[in-house]
Amino acid sequence: MNAPAVQPDLSPPEAIDTDVLVVGAGPAGLFQVFQLGLLGLRVALIDALPQAGGQCLALYPDKPIYDVPGIPVCTGRELTARLLAQAQPFLQPPVAPACGPLWQHLVSGLSAQPTEQGPGWDVATCHAHTGQPGPTVRCKGLVLATGAGAFLPRGLGLPGLEAQANVHHLMPDAPEQVSWAGQHVVVAGGGEEALLAAAQLLQWPAPLAPARITVLHRRAVLQGPDALLATVNAALADGRLHLQVGMPMAMAASEGRLQHLTLLQPDATHADFAADQWLVQLGLSPKLGPLAQWGIDLQRKQVQVDAATFATNLGGIHAIGDAIAYPGKLRLIVSAFHEATLAAHALARQWVPSHPAQPLYTTTSAVLHERLGLSHPG
Amino acid sequence: MNAPAVQPDLSPPEAIDTDVLVVGAGPAGLFQVFQLGLLGLRVALIDALPQAGGQCLALYPDKPIYDVPGIPVCTGRELTARLLAQAQPFLQPPVAPACGPLWQHLVSGLSAQPTEQGPGWDVATCHAHTGQPGPTVRCKGLVLATGAGAFLPRGLGLPGLEAQANVHHLMPDAPEQVSWAGQHVVVAGGGEEALLAAAQLLQWPAPLAPARITVLHRRAVLQGPDALLATVNAALADGRLHLQVGMPMAMAASEGRLQHLTLLQPDATHADFAADQWLVQLGLSPKLGPLAQWGIDLQRKQVQVDAATFATNLGGIHAIGDAIAYPGKLRLIVSAFHEATLAAHALARQWVPSHPAQPLYTTTSAVLHERLGLSHPG
Repeated sequence: MNAPAVQPDLSPPEAIDTDVLVVGAGPAGLFQVFQLGLLGLRVALIDALPQAGGQCLALYPDKPIYDVPGIPVCTGRELTARLLAQAQPFLQPPVAPACGPLWQHLVSGLSAQPTEQGPGWDVATCHAHTGQPGPTVRCKGLVLATGAGAFLPRGLGLPGLEAQANVHHLMPDAPEQVSWAGQHVVVAGGGEEALLAAAQLLQWPAPLAPARITVLHRRAVLQGPDALLATVNAALADGRLHLQVGMPMAMAASEGRLQHLTLLQPDATHADFAADQWLVQLGLSPKLGPLAQWGIDLQRKQVQVDAATFATNLGGIHAIGDAIAYPGKLRLIVSAFHEATLAAHALARQWVPSHPAQPLYTTTSAVLHERLGLSHPG
Repeated sequence: MNAPAVQPDLSPPEAIDTDVLVVGAGPAGLFQVFQLGLLGLRVALIDALPQAGGQCLALYPDKPIYDVPGIPVCTGRELTARLLAQAQPFLQPPVAPACGPLWQHLVSGLSAQPTEQGPGWDVATCHAHTGQPGPTVRCKGLVLATGAGAFLPRGLGLPGLEAQANVHHLMPDAPEQVSWAGQHVVVAGGGEEALLAAAQLLQWPAPLAPARITVLHRRAVLQGPDALLATVNAALADGRLHLQVGMPMAMAASEGRLQHLTLLQPDATHADFAADQWLVQLGLSPKLGPLAQWGIDLQRKQVQVDAATFATNLGGIHAIGDAIAYPGKLRLIVSAFHEATLAAHALARQWVPSHPAQPLYTTTSAVLHERLGLSHPG
């Protein structure tokens, strides 16, 4: 079972109106969408990555997991696909916005917009890589399912570098997407991700191919699977690929474009290194991001919640999964599923007028069957 | 997927020594066995029913469940089979006793046997139907996963009746198991279970068949699926089956055998009704049973627990699932899985010397792989 590839929506609306915004599309966030939809709430979903799965897909897509209840073994990829399939009725209109999940977007700001009925929030978003403003999400509540944070590409550590127009974090799917023909393209990084990008660039056909391709790494040792290393070393040996060793210490930019980096070389001298396009491939790193600035009660970077409702100290804002702390908390997927369920019920008690005191059961409830889109349940 | 039939063990040992006794083999209890085993604890399992599945299998074996995380749809029977498969490494020796789960057994008594290392318990058991003493289980801890209680056959409400040797609750699988040839057999009940038993008795071949079969019900209206009702009505019409209408008000027994019941008839008169064998088929009813007598803190019949450890007020005794109450509690399977996980970690913190502060992950931990019996994890 493969997690379906979901394309980023290229033209989201300026504003989205929903009941609840779920921040994070890992296993916790996906089951949160399911539970909220099941209880009759409209849901929007946002994630820094271009697809669902979060840490589960980013860190162990093909490793077996043995402790998901009722699933003796599955990979991170399979679990993601299963949870996506379960949440599907609630990832589509009218429950979810027509533009689909806000992939590759971050929550960049939060302002309270309380109504007579209770709390309300205007949530500002931005593109995870370009920083361009995304839709504003107006909602009654949020559930933070952010895990260790948004998985963002690691940068080179030079302030202002990522804002330059010729600095990229995503390897283009096809040469036609960019205009790198005849240019000098640098791939920064010495691990599997960087070597894979370099090997792909070497395959670009003649009229679209760069004139020169260089791998820029802090040391001369490259790391990756044997076959990939062999490909890269062969290209280095016959001059189709170049290696530049050095630590970026400073940058020179002009008209919004990076001109050159100043590198600290292994012999302790500095040298300027110029190129046309810069593809930074240093892997992903989780970042707590602006969540840390909102006044949410954090202790040791963990969101403090009430374990009966998974409410934070801010009205209408709940949090679940690896980001949170409460007495007895274990960072396990099985607990995130429980937390999502109790958070959904807490939000539904406030916002769904017909919400019953005791939960309805999906085996027997006609209301739940209708929400699940089942016309003839067994 | 069918839940594997598990035969009751006919000769369990006099005593069982284990780390933890799990009471109840529904979804909560089965996942509890898995989590305890995964954390390195030895587990024994006891249930009043002759097989795993509890309420899930007793009440909705073939109805679809839609809200188990990662399983978009499954029946109660399928969920039971999946959880049994997952717990399998820990339902076998050396983790579990060689005699297997104590099916059709109840916990009948509890006495504290504290040791220098912590709490300890001697748990008396008995057969769920005959009341005969079962093995004594000596353990360090218990987890009560008893749901609404032990599912026991409903009785006729006459004190002492069930203790008579010729009063039965289980329809024999085959005529050879009993000596009812030429006797008057009464099936008490007017629902599907009773009619099914009567229809089966009518099929017993001549030398082993009863001389007379009577359905005893409080009113003349019988209920069941159309085909079954047609079979029963045809047998009533041609005299192969008899119907006795009346409410049992008193009984007469002699030498440990029921002689006759005194029935209140629809015309308000009383009549004695004699027979040789009495098969009571009134369905199952959950009973809290002796748990209520142990000094466990109950409020409104619900076990009060600490939601960080799922510990009760008695040392070493934890409780999970539908039997318990804590702030925010919802009676959903997804929460029982979380509760089982936290209860297992709480017990392991006390009893497993190497138990780490943060949970190990089944994707990466060699210790967990070894406990799961995986020689070459992917």
